[in-house]
Amino acid sequence: MPLTPEQKAEIDAVRATPRETLRATAPGMEAQLHIAHPVLDHGFVRVVDYMGDDGAIVQAARVSYGAGTRHVSSDAGLIRYLMRHWHSTPFEMCEIKLHVKLPLFVARQWIRHRTANVNEYSARYSVLDREFYIPAPEHLAAQSTTNAQGRGDVLEGAEAARALEILKTDAARAYDSYETLLGGEQGLARELARMTLPANIYTQWYWKTDLHNLFHFLRLRADSHAQYEIRAYAETIHALVRDWVPEATRAFEDYRMGGAQLSAQALDCLRRMLAGEQITQESSGMSAREWREFCALFPPAR
Amino acid sequence: MPLTPEQKAEIDAVRATPRETLRATAPGMEAQLHIAHPVLDHGFVRVVDYMGDDGAIVQAARVSYGAGTRHVSSDAGLIRYLMRHWHSTPFEMCEIKLHVKLPLFVARQWIRHRTANVNEYSARYSVLDREFYIPAPEHLAAQSTTNAQGRGDVLEGAEAARALEILKTDAARAYDSYETLLGGEQGLARELARMTLPANIYTQWYWKTDLHNLFHFLRLRADSHAQYEIRAYAETIHALVRDWVPEATRAFEDYRMGGAQLSAQALDCLRRMLAGEQITQESSGMSAREWREFCALFPPAR
Amino acid sequence: MPLTPEQKAEIDAVRATPRETLRATAPGMEAQLHIAHPVLDHGFVRVVDYMGDDGAIVQAARVSYGAGTRHVSSDAGLIRYLMRHWHSTPFEMCEIKLHVKLPLFVARQWIRHRTANVNEYSARYSVLDREFYIPAPEHLAAQSTTNAQGRGDVLEGAEAARALEILKTDAARAYDSYETLLGGEQGLARELARMTLPANIYTQWYWKTDLHNLFHFLRLRADSHAQYEIRAYAETIHALVRDWVPEATRAFEDYRMGGAQLSAQALDCLRRMLAGEQITQESSGMSAREWREFCALFPPAR
Amino acid sequence: MPLTPEQKAEIDAVRATPRETLRATAPGMEAQLHIAHPVLDHGFVRVVDYMGDDGAIVQAARVSYGAGTRHVSSDAGLIRYLMRHWHSTPFEMCEIKLHVKLPLFVARQWIRHRTANVNEYSARYSVLDREFYIPAPEHLAAQSTTNAQGRGDVLEGAEAARALEILKTDAARAYDSYETLLGGEQGLARELARMTLPANIYTQWYWKTDLHNLFHFLRLRADSHAQYEIRAYAETIHALVRDWVPEATRAFEDYRMGGAQLSAQALDCLRRMLAGEQITQESSGMSAREWREFCALFPPAR
Repeated sequence: MPLTPEQKAEIDAVRATPRETLRATAPGMEAQLHIAHPVLDHGFVRVVDYMGDDGAIVQAARVSYGAGTRHVSSDAGLIRYLMRHWHSTPFEMCEIKLHVKLPLFVARQWIRHRTANVNEYSARYSVLDREFYIPAPEHLAAQSTTNAQGRGDVLEGAEAARALEILKTDAARAYDSYETLLGGEQGLARELARMTLPANIYTQWYWKTDLHNLFHFLRLRADSHAQYEIRAYAETIHALVRDWVPEATRAFEDYRMGGAQLSAQALDCLRRMLAGEQITQESSGMSAREWREFCALFPPAR
Repeated sequence: MPLTPEQKAEIDAVRATPRETLRATAPGMEAQLHIAHPVLDHGFVRVVDYMGDDGAIVQAARVSYGAGTRHVSSDAGLIRYLMRHWHSTPFEMCEIKLHVKLPLFVARQWIRHRTANVNEYSARYSVLDREFYIPAPEHLAAQSTTNAQGRGDVLEGAEAARALEILKTDAARAYDSYETLLGGEQGLARELARMTLPANIYTQWYWKTDLHNLFHFLRLRADSHAQYEIRAYAETIHALVRDWVPEATRAFEDYRMGGAQLSAQALDCLRRMLAGEQITQESSGMSAREWREFCALFPPAR
Repeated sequence: MPLTPEQKAEIDAVRATPRETLRATAPGMEAQLHIAHPVLDHGFVRVVDYMGDDGAIVQAARVSYGAGTRHVSSDAGLIRYLMRHWHSTPFEMCEIKLHVKLPLFVARQWIRHRTANVNEYSARYSVLDREFYIPAPEHLAAQSTTNAQGRGDVLEGAEAARALEILKTDAARAYDSYETLLGGEQGLARELARMTLPANIYTQWYWKTDLHNLFHFLRLRADSHAQYEIRAYAETIHALVRDWVPEATRAFEDYRMGGAQLSAQALDCLRRMLAGEQITQESSGMSAREWREFCALFPPAR
Repeated sequence: MPLTPEQKAEIDAVRATPRETLRATAPGMEAQLHIAHPVLDHGFVRVVDYMGDDGAIVQAARVSYGAGTRHVSSDAGLIRYLMRHWHSTPFEMCEIKLHVKLPLFVARQWIRHRTANVNEYSARYSVLDREFYIPAPEHLAAQSTTNAQGRGDVLEGAEAARALEILKTDAARAYDSYETLLGGEQGLARELARMTLPANIYTQWYWKTDLHNLFHFLRLRADSHAQYEIRAYAETIHALVRDWVPEATRAFEDYRMGGAQLSAQALDCLRRMLAGEQITQESSGMSAREWREFCALFPPAR
């Protein structure tokens, strides 16, 4: 159970006490506010605060473009236009603050997104809990043989059992060592003792970012090339964002997530194919790898 | 009058429609929300949205420092501790969005604060209004003879009248030209016509930043070395921030605004002076300029 | 003439004094270093310093991906792979510092790229020169009737002459006022006098950024939708970058400048068209505007 | 030994091949370039590239302030003035790129400095080496009883031996598990196997930042409150920076490292003490903690 009873009671109390505000509110997000959505075996994501809604994006755009925006009739149409033409600043006018519990190795990937504010639990000040990420059997995958950074088939049978056993035993032993180091008459300083803990231990943080940077995070981390564990967080956040700014999320899905960036060579091949030409990798001007990626987007007819 | 009747009606409507929220609210800020506070002759600052309050700073700090923060008994004490020891991330957990109307030359200084989100009125899309900043008589100052970037005495009599006359005439003539360029059978493109407009024309923008960066802005721009015109905005914002996060603002005032950064040499002089030594510039190890600044902080006894 | 004789002499002196270094050098860039490339009527761009070359991108990528990069045989291939898959951090390992002289309204667009370091000439400290941007006849265009932010036909005859006359007269008059304000017994403070100067006056700055952010700048500002005047600077810089990091620039041109981001709907239409279906706007799932943009990329056969 | 023979050969080769450049060079830095300076038991810092020198700071400042800077006679004086008055942008005109090998828990503190470019060795792509940080006996300290985030006395005798034994055994066992997980017929994916490795394993990265942000890093991380392990890196870098930009480093040491930020209350107390008043904590207006810090700076006479 990811939350302590105290945290649960706190959340219930906050959710039971609505207040009045003159700010823009997003009803879909209010319904989700403070609730912990489980991710992986001990993690969660919960929205602690937000600023703005779809209307705030439109409002900022209309300040920028003034009367020039009048001809885009609907708010949804304007949001799509902004997304399509990379006008990122109106999306920056929305902000979200999340409380996330996550394994340390996921935190290390996540923190590379620099345009965000972070307050992480400090293992110099406080003692970490005995909670480790142990993959579910269906996520215990072998190294991919074709992709240097990816996973291949799921491990099975004895091989799977052995891997799980190692991960569990190591985690338990490391935590025992941590406690031993901290204990005794003169415990080792917390800032030193923590260094024996493995990267699947859970940490937590408050993470705050604007909608433009959040979409960038989702595009990279909800992508199929991202490591499964961070993708699980990105997908949970993606669903929450849909409740918050539905129009902006729809535009993001159409133009970014579901779209593709094509190279000059790819555009040229498409034009030739539409004109009836048969293209092979040799005549495409692409490398073998690029051609494979292109064929995945536009499977050749049979 | 800085606001159009439509804008006034919009503000009244928003302020008449409180909504329910489960987010943290700052009552002092709710009272100010959306209201336009006049600055200079045609400008204003108004808070459009905010995220967090003093409690949000404490909440983030307690996530970071965990049980380690328990011994700081009060929230105010914790906020002061964070400010004193340059723990900036908890202050980043609060965010504010302002709508500002300001002269273009002020906007140019303001935009140098890079850690902020901006949507500015675009003179490529829309036509600018005939509104120019003309200094009040008491702000019409001569070039300082001792400070390369500062102001000296206030201009008086004929000299003042002449300067005001030039500024007013130039502004009117430039705007007439702008209208002429835009008009006619084939008006010049807006993006070109605007370039004849002077730097005291008003523009407006939405500007959003976090509390840490806002304090940094205030420290530099509400300072006596800042140009009066941007200082007028900084002071208006400072007052609004006091209503929003009173404890954080108090800590900021004690440790940043009202404090001072002393050099190694200055600390050494103070120690020697406390031990009874008489210090002169020669024996201080400081340059003439540094010594002047030091004596302004610690006026020598007479 | 954009450079003063002193500046020219300084540049000649620097270029006559090569030094020894153990850093990576880019011969193509050394040949351009310090030379002022004219832009518009009084502006210029000159490279003052740079860090890294194509090899530095590869070096950083190989640190990140370790043995995992061995299978990408060539440096050029690795650079293309990085660009294609949005691995931006290796490109951030190259840095460039430019000295730019530019009209103030161009500076205002440029400064919106926040991830850069800037030192601009200060009109609080110093007096600006009498130099204004006056468009060449072929750039004196009317407002576009179809594009709210763009230019239409070039002005001709009397209309053009009138516009040029206004721009020139206004600039001269404004500068006369500026001098009058600064002069007299008690000149107006420089920080106030400057506010009567129009937006086509020239300013200058040192601007430093990394290659990733520079490419982002070029993609937006060397684009056909950018205002001509900033595009002129972007194109000059683009040519300089080609001399500096030729492989990275080639990848940028193929995947960003010459490529296109297609929406989910556009990908779907292409697949249906390749399968022989006739698509119209109605059956495309796109808005009229999106369909126009799509047809511009893939002109329908006739 | 922190470097592989291949890396050593590469460094020797680069250092044996000086090239000609027209860029600013810093002789003190050239002498250090590429050389690996050992830090902790297996780590190092080495400068891979740099941009600018003391002269580049002055050059940028003179562009900004124009003729206004003429009255500051010397370059060193101008640099001190800039540092004293928080003019940070000229310092941003210098850039440095480091190759660092460091324990993962140090990397986690370091990465919180967001205004930097990073390429880190990826344990998704490649296998980590069997190298762990084991503190030297004099750094094996107990938890401080007075400071929640600090270290107390050094462990001794059996207590120290026991802690060292645990850290070594755990590291060896974790690495054995890592190898086991990666091995076998179907090795576990690298991105999963790594998660059993503890936080004292070494990683490495290229890290690039500008001088202003580097000074900020040094002020926080070379401070006595920083954890010893990151301080060891900061001190090594501090020494390298002194060779690179000696004047700027001197100003940094006088105004930042060796200086202090005093609160309004502290300034008031100093004024009263200089006027002969005896101040106690009660009459100081400070909290007990602040008063302790104040007395550490200005020890009361006895």
